[in-house]
Amino acid sequence: MYNSAESVERLINRLARLPGIGRKSAARLAFHILKLSKDEANEIADTIREVKEKVGYCSICCNISESDPCLVCQDPRRRREVICVVEEAADAAALDKAEGFDGLFHVLGGRLSPLDGIGPDDLRIKELLARLDDGTVNEIILATNPNVEGEATATYLSRLLRPMGIRVTRIARGLPVGSDLEYADSATLNRALEGRQDI
Amino acid sequence: MYNSAESVERLINRLARLPGIGRKSAARLAFHILKLSKDEANEIADTIREVKEKVGYCSICCNISESDPCLVCQDPRRRREVICVVEEAADAAALDKAEGFDGLFHVLGGRLSPLDGIGPDDLRIKELLARLDDGTVNEIILATNPNVEGEATATYLSRLLRPMGIRVTRIARGLPVGSDLEYADSATLNRALEGRQDI
Repeated sequence: MYNSAESVERLINRLARLPGIGRKSAARLAFHILKLSKDEANEIADTIREVKEKVGYCSICCNISESDPCLVCQDPRRRREVICVVEEAADAAALDKAEGFDGLFHVLGGRLSPLDGIGPDDLRIKELLARLDDGTVNEIILATNPNVEGEATATYLSRLLRPMGIRVTRIARGLPVGSDLEYADSATLNRALEGRQDI
Repeated sequence: MYNSAESVERLINRLARLPGIGRKSAARLAFHILKLSKDEANEIADTIREVKEKVGYCSICCNISESDPCLVCQDPRRRREVICVVEEAADAAALDKAEGFDGLFHVLGGRLSPLDGIGPDDLRIKELLARLDDGTVNEIILATNPNVEGEATATYLSRLLRPMGIRVTRIARGLPVGSDLEYADSATLNRALEGRQDI
């Protein structure tokens, strides 16, 4: 695009490959970085390097962590009887931020997706089963995403886990808090009706 | 947010300070970077460092450049009689990409904005005037943004330049190509009417 600064072009191309960032946003970001002081720009570069150097995986819950086991698995205030199963580390982070869950997590590292060639062996299911051996856990909450692949993953896991005598639950699907019934899609509305509760 | 990986939190905070990136996008980007290989992540960090090391400013047109003078100012195929004045390097890049202009650029480095304390002395106007001394330039195209501050900057510059006997023009404001008259705002419609041309 801009032939007088090849390195800018390279930066734009690299940024444009990030998720949710098109070429125009990438160009805006690159020109913003050009306007930063050298220290500020290097701070971004350093935090990216740092994250890749420090962050690994917890050998228990498979979540990202700087320590092993991770701080959640180590935390004595967390209930050890409930494990909330999520697809990705970002999902665990979102639930943690919401502060409504005080049990442990298990990060699958994806969801079943036959079209992408992702089967049960590609997810950290073996690691989940290993956590059930000592009999501490009495409930597994399946918090995979409420879409086709997430539902399939939840169904697969529930069939695997229920015979083991553990309570298996699925997070509720319904109308988002603060939303408008009028604008909700019909699948969500039907789910909200099915999942109705006595008040 | 996610207490088991401080460096992730730091990266999210840093990314969220970039323009057009909110906390949620920053988190998505950070988790994407975590999933990249170390080499891929370091490539991003390196391109950011590289851009800050290599890119400086052209001493003639004040545009960003890896060489001085920049490749545009050096290019013998460019018409030296016309200078297109823009606010930022990104604007020059956009015009260059459109390939409809074969003259030279001048990057002001901003626009007049009394509310932000930006006056004429904060823009590279002195450098623009210096380029007119040898009498080569016979037209200045004012291509500052078509908003309040950009218009004020253009008006200021035209008052400064016209007495010097140079033709001063302003890029046309009207309906964007491919747009719908029905959805255009009234300021744009009025400008499009005022700027009408014989066909």
